[in-house]
Amino acid sequence: MRPLVSAEIIAVGTEMLTPFRIDTNSLFLSARLNEIGIEVLRKSIVGDRMDDLVTTVANACFRSDVVIITGGLGPTADDLTREAVAAALNLRLREDPEILEGLKKRFAKRASGAMPENNRRQAQVLDGAVVLANPNGSAPGLWIDRGEKAVILLPGPPREMEPMFETHVGPKLARRTGARRLQRRVIKIAGQAESLIDEIASPIYVPFLKAAVPIETTVLAHPGQVELHLSAAGDDQKAIAAALAAAVESLTSAIGESVFSTDGRSIESVVGDALKARALTIGVAESCTGGLVAGRLTDVPGSSAYVRGGVMAYSNGVKSGTLGVPAELIAQHGAVSEPVALAMAEGVRRTLGADVGVAVTGIAGPDGGTPEKPVGTVWFAVAGPEGDTETYKRVVPGDRQVVRAWAVMVALDLVRRALR
Amino acid sequence: MRPLVSAEIIAVGTEMLTPFRIDTNSLFLSARLNEIGIEVLRKSIVGDRMDDLVTTVANACFRSDVVIITGGLGPTADDLTREAVAAALNLRLREDPEILEGLKKRFAKRASGAMPENNRRQAQVLDGAVVLANPNGSAPGLWIDRGEKAVILLPGPPREMEPMFETHVGPKLARRTGARRLQRRVIKIAGQAESLIDEIASPIYVPFLKAAVPIETTVLAHPGQVELHLSAAGDDQKAIAAALAAAVESLTSAIGESVFSTDGRSIESVVGDALKARALTIGVAESCTGGLVAGRLTDVPGSSAYVRGGVMAYSNGVKSGTLGVPAELIAQHGAVSEPVALAMAEGVRRTLGADVGVAVTGIAGPDGGTPEKPVGTVWFAVAGPEGDTETYKRVVPGDRQVVRAWAVMVALDLVRRALR
Repeated sequence: MRPLVSAEIIAVGTEMLTPFRIDTNSLFLSARLNEIGIEVLRKSIVGDRMDDLVTTVANACFRSDVVIITGGLGPTADDLTREAVAAALNLRLREDPEILEGLKKRFAKRASGAMPENNRRQAQVLDGAVVLANPNGSAPGLWIDRGEKAVILLPGPPREMEPMFETHVGPKLARRTGARRLQRRVIKIAGQAESLIDEIASPIYVPFLKAAVPIETTVLAHPGQVELHLSAAGDDQKAIAAALAAAVESLTSAIGESVFSTDGRSIESVVGDALKARALTIGVAESCTGGLVAGRLTDVPGSSAYVRGGVMAYSNGVKSGTLGVPAELIAQHGAVSEPVALAMAEGVRRTLGADVGVAVTGIAGPDGGTPEKPVGTVWFAVAGPEGDTETYKRVVPGDRQVVRAWAVMVALDLVRRALR
Repeated sequence: MRPLVSAEIIAVGTEMLTPFRIDTNSLFLSARLNEIGIEVLRKSIVGDRMDDLVTTVANACFRSDVVIITGGLGPTADDLTREAVAAALNLRLREDPEILEGLKKRFAKRASGAMPENNRRQAQVLDGAVVLANPNGSAPGLWIDRGEKAVILLPGPPREMEPMFETHVGPKLARRTGARRLQRRVIKIAGQAESLIDEIASPIYVPFLKAAVPIETTVLAHPGQVELHLSAAGDDQKAIAAALAAAVESLTSAIGESVFSTDGRSIESVVGDALKARALTIGVAESCTGGLVAGRLTDVPGSSAYVRGGVMAYSNGVKSGTLGVPAELIAQHGAVSEPVALAMAEGVRRTLGADVGVAVTGIAGPDGGTPEKPVGTVWFAVAGPEGDTETYKRVVPGDRQVVRAWAVMVALDLVRRALR
């Protein structure tokens, strides 16, 4: 048989046409399909209307090798996916006694006991379809072979859809895609503007497209973090892995020390691993970030091994009282200043009995800016285990949210650099 | 002319078929279209392929009154939206001298000076189209009347698309939709399970659908927060506002004191407003939430007026050292216990000189659970301005992220209740 190369994803449900919900299943599905060498040609989001569904399914089956339909497999009258696919492909629906039995057993375990009559619809199966078990919900999936093509019906909730894809759909598709596979690598960069990184990186990555193993590069930016996603697809997995490794190497050495990870780790994991490796603990003193640096560090499971704690010193009284920053220093230089940042870092290190202290003090806005210290001005300091200190100033353009998010990244990156 | 009632949104760009990007423009557009009485029937996400674009546009124009196409208006060869719409609607493209002049002026302001030849494509206009100015980018929008229908081309970047919609598209559409308008109200609820709220609320809101002014209800759940979104559409705006107000009132009184806002405010704003109204300050002591409660409180602009600061006491040493929790108390009851939570709240109130102290101590997991205190066990305490105290325990099922997010909401809600 001809290998499967193209796919289309149809998300079914009127709720996904409201301002409240968005189809995110397709991000998961695209990633998995790409990995096994299948390209996604189109996504459609369709309401619970029969005629619209039937046309969409019929057109998709005409255009693409694989059609994945998520949602609309529930028990209620507006769950139309089974009927629509039957109409589009001219297949009969029949009740599957085994599924019905399973549904009844499922409901018997509950307080209510009996299966609502509605749920009987979930036992409907398209003639010739393979039933895909759903251990996480009541709607089974269905796989229909259609000549060389495949039409796949999956439940809408991600916690049901994703395991069903991983267990049944992915492996079955992979057997029909030939040897072509896609591999990805990600380079993560802290504290640099997207435009600057792209200026350095694009002369390097643009030629990758025409190399022996062509590599595609996508640049993604979050506040304070830029990511280069490299991907290459083909039959020779060893050659692809080697080409990607070489590409990561040349980009990383051009970008330099602001690269904090090439293995997928977050900055809080990189910092945590560095602290663990050197058996050091950390304390955090925050003003404008208001606890978010500590929040990120403690997002990592097991972070209690190296995070002593933090002081969120929003008021000057807490800066001098709890952190021991001399009040005169604040009066003389202002709370957002190099000496105060440094005194906060040293103070939190001392007060909490940590090896490393990191401090952030800045003006997140919208108020509080002055001509000398505009909104977005942030001072950072790190006090290291051997009495070594570093200070750093950054002026971040943007609103309160952006300034805070940038400041969190820069603070964590300063610790990372200090620990090298 | 017949009023416009239905719309379709087409997002153009191969990058939106990758696992990295998702079309979020359609959420903004759906909200705005709904408000002026237009229903969104379908969304399509199409790559930069001519034939696919042409069919999609032609089908959409056949089915729906309004077709909005976002993206693909850039200067490069794979920006095909203009050409595809020309082909689908059988219209001629011509160069608009005024747009060209504007583009040249735009580039003259830059360091490079001259307009790249590529950008000339952005001056191409469909015959008979109204040009929509883009003060935030180089791609102008286009509006094409097609009998009673409208086809609208907008740039992809939200910061260009949204102002263009607000300035030009929304008002122009609103003049052609008759008197029908949609109004929304949101009820926000803290610390309750979605299923429980729905059990209380659905017998009340289901009949709303068949009332004189029919009201639709959507239930959205985030960790620790449930939202009921009520919407009603029609010609009589006063009657709709009154019906929604009555609906909000009856749901709110049935759900009771866990409703924290019916005016769109976040819990951190509600808490902040309550503190400001009583001229009180707050201090936060956190263990398992690691700074996130303080982070949320300080998300609010102007929160420095009432947030003194916080102590993130991840280690027991910080709990006893900085917060003054007696070490024996920790030894006797464990760090996750009622007496320790209470001592943390009182300690942070005293240490930071705040009027109100709030404390969170729990086991976020994945490790650290015991049969008596499983992962997800969290103790909360509030120490109030008159020496009054409250303590509360909650066991939250879920992973580390979910436990932390729930704990943040419950802590903020406990403060809200204590301040009433």
